[in-house]
Amino acid sequence: MRRSVVSMAAGSRLECVRSVRGVVLDMCGVLYDSGEDGGHAIAGSVAAVQRLTDSGLIVRFCTNETQNTREKFVQKLRRMGFDISVSHVFSPAPALVRILRERQLRPHLLVHDDLMPEFDGLDTSSPNCVVIGDAADKFSYQNLNEAFRVLIGLEQPLLFSLGRGRFYKETDGLKLDVGVFMKALEYACEVQAEVVGKPSAAFFHTVLTDMSLQPHEAVMIGDDLVNDVGGAQSCGMKGIQVRTGKYRPSDEKHASVRADGYMDDLSAAVDAILTSSHR
Amino acid sequence: MRRSVVSMAAGSRLECVRSVRGVVLDMCGVLYDSGEDGGHAIAGSVAAVQRLTDSGLIVRFCTNETQNTREKFVQKLRRMGFDISVSHVFSPAPALVRILRERQLRPHLLVHDDLMPEFDGLDTSSPNCVVIGDAADKFSYQNLNEAFRVLIGLEQPLLFSLGRGRFYKETDGLKLDVGVFMKALEYACEVQAEVVGKPSAAFFHTVLTDMSLQPHEAVMIGDDLVNDVGGAQSCGMKGIQVRTGKYRPSDEKHASVRADGYMDDLSAAVDAILTSSHR
Repeated sequence: MRRSVVSMAAGSRLECVRSVRGVVLDMCGVLYDSGEDGGHAIAGSVAAVQRLTDSGLIVRFCTNETQNTREKFVQKLRRMGFDISVSHVFSPAPALVRILRERQLRPHLLVHDDLMPEFDGLDTSSPNCVVIGDAADKFSYQNLNEAFRVLIGLEQPLLFSLGRGRFYKETDGLKLDVGVFMKALEYACEVQAEVVGKPSAAFFHTVLTDMSLQPHEAVMIGDDLVNDVGGAQSCGMKGIQVRTGKYRPSDEKHASVRADGYMDDLSAAVDAILTSSHR
Repeated sequence: MRRSVVSMAAGSRLECVRSVRGVVLDMCGVLYDSGEDGGHAIAGSVAAVQRLTDSGLIVRFCTNETQNTREKFVQKLRRMGFDISVSHVFSPAPALVRILRERQLRPHLLVHDDLMPEFDGLDTSSPNCVVIGDAADKFSYQNLNEAFRVLIGLEQPLLFSLGRGRFYKETDGLKLDVGVFMKALEYACEVQAEVVGKPSAAFFHTVLTDMSLQPHEAVMIGDDLVNDVGGAQSCGMKGIQVRTGKYRPSDEKHASVRADGYMDDLSAAVDAILTSSHR
């Protein structure tokens, strides 16, 4: 099925979002560009978030960020000028910790050093599952071998992946994301990972529940066509792709995912939503 | 289809190989176990190769080894006591170099330092394809990012993988093989790699041509059920798995590949072949 697609300049209307009551924002590549230097806000995005919040629409943030605890991550965004509260931010690690506790699992962790505090208090002795996040430089041959040996030594290898992204953009170039290493370990062990985070439907539903909205009442804005837009659409939400962050022109000709709208940046997307919803 | 399978002690017969005229031997995990220390011959395998050669059967060696040039690799095996000539050893790098020259490709190489001399004389400026081998410790996040950026920057990403193995066994434990990183880059770039080496049919046919044999006249002996046994069977050869190297008991219950015979080690396999073929 081919949806009618809009691609318009700032101030245009987006008919598909006329009746939305809530907006879910991806963060990296939409609010800011990340980088070795900590990254910087994308032009116009601080004010755009403010306009959205002031409009009365329900706003939540949904990220697959796993290089920081949620608290540290929000602090970083606040320093860039964003007015965001921790309780409005949904990230994979806290969601996974709930799962690990419920299922009484002891993880071997291959995650970024700065994410480790999220797992404080969990039993990691004699691991019976492996957790991978965006470990960046920690994705060494040695660490991947170590995670592999834990998995292959289990009677039923159990792998959790914090997201399934292919790559993201930092100020010094494109970088491989956690999904790539998930695929690597899946192949090595002949298993399928359980993905926690976007595009998992369970993850989007947690956000919608918090907003007290039905899927059709919410729109997701992201730079990742498959994980943000496609994931949200699979849940019955609308999905808008912005042409910032990891966006590539070829996304607009993708074989299976078609956004409900393509906008130049968050500022333009917010303007279009506010105009269309008469806010 | 479930084949009748034999699993016997040394000296037993292997009906399936009664009329074979040639034997193709995998090397790592069959002739020797590799390791940081250079590895060591598997008990009985030096003498087994000699018995095979003396029997009049045509013998070739077929390896996905890409941590060394073929010359250095054969030197290592000779030091372990094996009587092997370089011209009887088939490995992926020389086969790939022929392909690169024929198709006038300029590779970005993510391969083991010790394999680099195989690519001497090739133009590697402005690469228009990526080649990965078993780069071991060179599979760092940084090097994988670099290979990824070359691929994603090409209009049609072209990835060659020297084998598609999942893992292998060294004296200090199991290690991830090139196939795992092939899968990683395939996912990152949404491409399918061209595999050079086992289990590629083209690779087995090169060996058979050199032996002047039809597929049904040859048997492959390997420790890798999928790449050695399954690859050879796909070409019409017989395939025997030995219970050394990376062999795991679960291989004998594999969902899709079933060896024509399982033998404890090369020595037992050779005895069975010689007995069955009345040599």
